[in-house]
Amino acid sequence: MAFGLVAQQFVRLGILSTSDHASVVSINLFVALLCGCIVIGHLLEESRWINESITALVIGVCTGVVILLTTKGKSSHIFVFSEDLFFIYLLPPIIFNAGFQVKKKQFFRNFMTIMLFGAIGTLISFFTISLGAIALFRKMDIGTLDIGDFLAIGAIFSATDSVCTLQVLNQDETPLLYSLVFGEGVVNDATSVVLFNAIQNFDLVHIDAIIILKFVGNFGYLFISSTLLGAFGGLLSAYIIKKLYIGRHSTDREVALMILMAYLSYMLAELLNLSGILTVFFCGIVMSHYTWHNVTESSRVTTKHAFATLSFIAEIFLFLYVGMDALDIEKWRFVSDSPGKSLRVSSILLGLVLVGRAAFVFPLSFLSNLTKKSRYERIIFKQQVTIWWAGLMRGAVSIALAYNQFTRSGHTQLRGNAFMITSTITVVLFSTVVFGLMTKPLIRDQKKKEENSQVDHPASECSLANQLIRFTTTGAKRPQLAVS
Amino acid sequence: MAFGLVAQQFVRLGILSTSDHASVVSINLFVALLCGCIVIGHLLEESRWINESITALVIGVCTGVVILLTTKGKSSHIFVFSEDLFFIYLLPPIIFNAGFQVKKKQFFRNFMTIMLFGAIGTLISFFTISLGAIALFRKMDIGTLDIGDFLAIGAIFSATDSVCTLQVLNQDETPLLYSLVFGEGVVNDATSVVLFNAIQNFDLVHIDAIIILKFVGNFGYLFISSTLLGAFGGLLSAYIIKKLYIGRHSTDREVALMILMAYLSYMLAELLNLSGILTVFFCGIVMSHYTWHNVTESSRVTTKHAFATLSFIAEIFLFLYVGMDALDIEKWRFVSDSPGKSLRVSSILLGLVLVGRAAFVFPLSFLSNLTKKSRYERIIFKQQVTIWWAGLMRGAVSIALAYNQFTRSGHTQLRGNAFMITSTITVVLFSTVVFGLMTKPLIRDQKKKEENSQVDHPASECSLANQLIRFTTTGAKRPQLAVS
Repeated sequence: MAFGLVAQQFVRLGILSTSDHASVVSINLFVALLCGCIVIGHLLEESRWINESITALVIGVCTGVVILLTTKGKSSHIFVFSEDLFFIYLLPPIIFNAGFQVKKKQFFRNFMTIMLFGAIGTLISFFTISLGAIALFRKMDIGTLDIGDFLAIGAIFSATDSVCTLQVLNQDETPLLYSLVFGEGVVNDATSVVLFNAIQNFDLVHIDAIIILKFVGNFGYLFISSTLLGAFGGLLSAYIIKKLYIGRHSTDREVALMILMAYLSYMLAELLNLSGILTVFFCGIVMSHYTWHNVTESSRVTTKHAFATLSFIAEIFLFLYVGMDALDIEKWRFVSDSPGKSLRVSSILLGLVLVGRAAFVFPLSFLSNLTKKSRYERIIFKQQVTIWWAGLMRGAVSIALAYNQFTRSGHTQLRGNAFMITSTITVVLFSTVVFGLMTKPLIRDQKKKEENSQVDHPASECSLANQLIRFTTTGAKRPQLAVS
Repeated sequence: MAFGLVAQQFVRLGILSTSDHASVVSINLFVALLCGCIVIGHLLEESRWINESITALVIGVCTGVVILLTTKGKSSHIFVFSEDLFFIYLLPPIIFNAGFQVKKKQFFRNFMTIMLFGAIGTLISFFTISLGAIALFRKMDIGTLDIGDFLAIGAIFSATDSVCTLQVLNQDETPLLYSLVFGEGVVNDATSVVLFNAIQNFDLVHIDAIIILKFVGNFGYLFISSTLLGAFGGLLSAYIIKKLYIGRHSTDREVALMILMAYLSYMLAELLNLSGILTVFFCGIVMSHYTWHNVTESSRVTTKHAFATLSFIAEIFLFLYVGMDALDIEKWRFVSDSPGKSLRVSSILLGLVLVGRAAFVFPLSFLSNLTKKSRYERIIFKQQVTIWWAGLMRGAVSIALAYNQFTRSGHTQLRGNAFMITSTITVVLFSTVVFGLMTKPLIRDQKKKEENSQVDHPASECSLANQLIRFTTTGAKRPQLAVS
């Protein structure tokens, strides 16, 4: 029986739900747009500037404009931005695939630097942006914002968008930068969870040693437990598939089990208020390292491409969605009377993002270089600039948090909140498009230097990598020991 | 940023949405159960009786009982049965994959018989059940049911559940039976849409030639337009992928494009009130016949298994879901005072289903045998019994329709409606489990006879198959002409 029939049933029952029809229409429009994005993205593949995310974002905004005009300014989006959609359906496949496809050797070699950037770096940028916002916005009359709001602003705008990173950085072209910036983005998530715990639970006005210790302990607990949960999920799937020889009867069961267990690990992490992103990321790493070697040949090909495809669709969906949502007339109504001020707020925030990131990339790179013996291992200045630059993009994560902090049920009541929402959108659009456009060339320019520093030789942190892998190895009956 | 963070944000904002937490819990439980079903289904693979759908159904019911006990009879399901979930998300992948993997030669060879069963057969069973219900229920006092309700009962219980068929019949073991019963199930959908149009628009009390002509015309239009839409979607995807050489840059784009365009064709059909099932089924056939040959090797492996996996997960999900929902305390409360009567209603309906199906399988098989020249082509009596038997199962489709007809916003107001809902659930559970259990052995018993009739030789309707395929061929630039 088709939905059409059901719709007719509704008509028959005299309770014709126009919402059903509307949702069918919007799904049609949205899927058609997705197809469009994929085709256009394919045609622009050779382009020196554009990448898929920017295409989707732009198409989204254009569609928003069209809808806005056709509905005569009534509405501009076909879906209301929902955090559930984002955190429950779109984010997991993207991060899982990133973990599944990440170059593990490169990742674990730079593990310490990644931790440094992800944990300490995020903190530095958080404090810089929060204090900057307090200092600059207090003078301007943009409605009432309390200390909690300012701290939230700090967290919102230090949230590196891992998804954008995946789009602009190419793992094969620049493995070092990729693993640094993306890894940072993943760890960044754990930090932010701790950060918000802190904002809620600790009195941040008089900070003392105990609070800082608690804070560090909290982060350690969160990081380790999330990682272990992810690793456990991966190992369990490997064990079941190997022990029960699932592939004997059908390939599909293997693939289904991998997908479901990865998703389960993410949702479990959310249930336990851990960092789901960290969990599913490490689950992806472990699955590609153990499970993947225990499945049938066809399952290997399938998983490799199926996960990539899912994540690909989720990414396009996400940017299209953000682009469409950006023009939501509701949000702009409140600030339409003072466009100049709204613009000033946005540019201040953009400046703070730039400064906040610079404030940790360069010092921490310097620190990490001190630990490196060989000069090939060091992060040269040009690379530091790229790291700083590539991490400037803010995306759906920032928007989701801004909505969460500054709106109730999707509508802005207070003037201050309205300003924050609109500026967040402005910053996201601007940073993604402009910074995104300029990252590709920037990287191509210094690719040569990159390649030099990629010469393979025993590195200081390589041992750590092997330790980590050995540690996990003991847990699983895996066929081979080579670090893949 | 993780959902955990968002949840904490909610806490912070003082609007802790327990619903969010609840949904996370239920998703965890549900995904865990899905994994369980897959593992158990794997362990029971060799079993002579059980199949995956029955496992899922039983596990679902058991979980329902547990939840019922833990919540002290307050609720028994973690999700409320939603038609959208079923028709928008679960059904399309299942039917698409069925079309994608179907043995086209076999299907088109039996095309006429399938049409006969799907169109005329469904009508016969519809009238048998409706009239039987009117005759038998009028005497019993089970609340008020009008003529519309009785006709709806006819439609609800003549809805062959294609999904169950896929589970019990094995295409490789019994290709003829599979193509007949499953094909019938697909065409059955178009018939039902027309049927409901008819119930709404035509005055069925005084039937005359014009009405019947209208009816036939209506069916023809619906069938042809749905088929053409599906074929067009498939050919378009083939054309785009071949012309733009999407595979040049990435395999993932090819796979993504195939998935999205198949889904788009389904949703378009729904939008135009056509039969989405027919559309997506033919879209699957065309894609496996043209598009599949234009994609890269890895895309072929990926699509073959990825689509099967999606459909596999959707099926398990569906049966688990139906099983869980079956115990919804709300529905049973109304009939709890007269269990005997409820049982009688259910058994009457079950009897009507048996009779209604027998009323068209045997006569129509006889008719179709008349057209067959070679005795190998004929449907022998034992096969007719199997066809009758294998199509007896009623599933989620019937439930969705019953809810739609007899409930408003998921709750039963009238006594008569309550009876119908509970009896539908009883019939679905009983038919799926009991008939399902007995189908596997039944088929194995007469497999030999089947194999004899599978000897390959030019058949009367084979020409039609080639015609159909040639017809579509002209539309597409496809690499080879062999009927795959």
